Amino acid sequence: MEHFSARLAKVWDWMAEESISLLMLEDTEGRRDQNIRWLTGHPGDALLFLSQSRKAVLTAWDVNLAAQYASNAPVILTAYNDFERQASKAIAAVALLLDIPAGSKIEIPSVTPYPLFLDYVGKLTNYDIICREGGAGAQLKKFRAVKDEKEIEITRKAAGITNELIELLEKNVRSGKIKTEADAALLIEVEARKRGCEGTSFETLAAGPKRSFAIHAFPNWTYSEFGSDGLSILDFGVRLDGYSTDVTLTFAANLNPKQEKLVNLTEKAAKLALSMAHNGTPTKEIATAVDALFTKSKKQMPHGLGHGLGLQEHEYPLITSRSSNEWVLEPGMIFTIEPGLYDPLLGGCRLENDVLITETGSEVLTTSRIIRL
Amino acid sequence: MEHFSARLAKVWDWMAEESISLLMLEDTEGRRDQNIRWLTGHPGDALLFLSQSRKAVLTAWDVNLAAQYASNAPVILTAYNDFERQASKAIAAVALLLDIPAGSKIEIPSVTPYPLFLDYVGKLTNYDIICREGGAGAQLKKFRAVKDEKEIEITRKAAGITNELIELLEKNVRSGKIKTEADAALLIEVEARKRGCEGTSFETLAAGPKRSFAIHAFPNWTYSEFGSDGLSILDFGVRLDGYSTDVTLTFAANLNPKQEKLVNLTEKAAKLALSMAHNGTPTKEIATAVDALFTKSKKQMPHGLGHGLGLQEHEYPLITSRSSNEWVLEPGMIFTIEPGLYDPLLGGCRLENDVLITETGSEVLTTSRIIRL
Repeated sequence: MEHFSARLAKVWDWMAEESISLLMLEDTEGRRDQNIRWLTGHPGDALLFLSQSRKAVLTAWDVNLAAQYASNAPVILTAYNDFERQASKAIAAVALLLDIPAGSKIEIPSVTPYPLFLDYVGKLTNYDIICREGGAGAQLKKFRAVKDEKEIEITRKAAGITNELIELLEKNVRSGKIKTEADAALLIEVEARKRGCEGTSFETLAAGPKRSFAIHAFPNWTYSEFGSDGLSILDFGVRLDGYSTDVTLTFAANLNPKQEKLVNLTEKAAKLALSMAHNGTPTKEIATAVDALFTKSKKQMPHGLGHGLGLQEHEYPLITSRSSNEWVLEPGMIFTIEPGLYDPLLGGCRLENDVLITETGSEVLTTSRIIRL
Repeated sequence: MEHFSARLAKVWDWMAEESISLLMLEDTEGRRDQNIRWLTGHPGDALLFLSQSRKAVLTAWDVNLAAQYASNAPVILTAYNDFERQASKAIAAVALLLDIPAGSKIEIPSVTPYPLFLDYVGKLTNYDIICREGGAGAQLKKFRAVKDEKEIEITRKAAGITNELIELLEKNVRSGKIKTEADAALLIEVEARKRGCEGTSFETLAAGPKRSFAIHAFPNWTYSEFGSDGLSILDFGVRLDGYSTDVTLTFAANLNPKQEKLVNLTEKAAKLALSMAHNGTPTKEIATAVDALFTKSKKQMPHGLGHGLGLQEHEYPLITSRSSNEWVLEPGMIFTIEPGLYDPLLGGCRLENDVLITETGSEVLTTSRIIRL
């Protein structure tokens, strides 16, 4: 399909500007990277090589699976087993296959461990091995932070399914059909796949009043009460054709005044953040405004305000008040806004929705909310 | 509990031998590491610092959760937020807190990306930053490859639960109650947690006859037929108090002679491998014997023969025929044996069980098998 070719072309153009002869991308256990899926459709466990001569070689652990999933991308398919599943051997072989001249720059992922980098440099002495922040990895993050039409279309569908699940969850908690964390988590698991999703975008986090004080309760769900008196958090997402949603509902029942204050502040923070989300806004400004709102009430949020969404559940842009955050909103960016407050005694409260930046403002794709029981 | 102290003592002893003044372990998104759970009980998103003066500082993203889970380990608890969630700042602060002298060796994880390593070296100029293969990471892999009594006890319980699920799965496939991949996967999800597990040890992989040709079918389960004519694969595990099992059942119905051959060869391979599993055997010998068996029938297994199990679903020892594999079996090692053969037309077949090496031989902890319908 043409969107793979268009994405590959962006990377090839960038390689020409940077004089990178060969780029290696890697998706492996411990170093997952959805760039290969973004560029070819193949979901993983593979190396992808792109050459300045505008060729692509996909080296897959499971060639049968790759033949099926990468069938719409212009790639030459090879088996990782042919290189004894050693990246250094695959790089050497592909460099020969694609006639990469000696002395050329070969860029490898910026997450390559230091000892492995030394190993590559020792074995690939004919080439100049580049491993850097601000290189291909950073460039791909920037490309992927702004979604193309195909990606927006899929995410809209995924958000639609998410919203159907939100309605179903509210109905079933109110009717008493969902009584435990397990009831909520399993409903999502079943209903997401029935609607054609690959599954959930991460393990559903369902935490009833006794466990909601933790940002990410552990284990992620149990057979404890859910939706009973106090604050219950339900953080989930679906994955459709690779694309994630990520929302958090809070169910609030018979709150005391201190719990009410947490809930009201969280709602106020979400509203403030959404009102600031439009083209051209530095995301640090939004997160700093939410921090200030909480500080005025002597509260502190222990996590970032949001993150990009796409083939990974955590992508770019970042929405944080950290000094290093330099992301600026652009049309096509899709990200979460998820203010939350937590207290070991009162429990926790989080409200998370997914937002798309448009030419004229923003569109909240999901319908997450605080549900008062 | 004393097992955390005993494990910490092993690492501290090793640090003294190696003259490492401070060791930093990291569990973070993209660089998961169960060593922190192994040493403190805290399940993750944290840094752990160990000093040659035999102190431990746990720097947690969620301090409330860490206070609960690490309550049995002798650690000083600090908040990652206090260091702006920047590892370099945390290292500098903890080095001061623990009086690490200037010029001392500070070891960081061997998976540290090359650019991040350069960043640490640039910021922590008072210390000698060590990042290496064969250092602390390799030593911890070796320690963890041989399970202690507490770990064997928990894994036995997890295997018992796994075996209950295997019986239930066979019964429900035979009775027709399990008709789809979803039925099988959801049964595991529900029944594992009912029995006290934290959850599954990885996303259950259920692949009916149309999808079993892939080593790891994608998506991992759908609403396709399961247990119908041909070969269906069910690869799953449970996690109990952090410890994983990992088994694969194959359901075989109305096979043609070529499919029969795959199944018989796989069973033969499993039997051969188990007969060789005892104290003192290099694991490469076992995997090489299985490779030879398959080669004789002009078949090839596209993945390794097995892997260690523990707090991660993939640990050490490795059981592969790769030339670099130097693991030798020892009492206390727990690992999978999982021969499998795959064909785009015939489907796939895999038989995976979990094995404990004892003083006198081995014990197969799980009861996985090829189930002929």
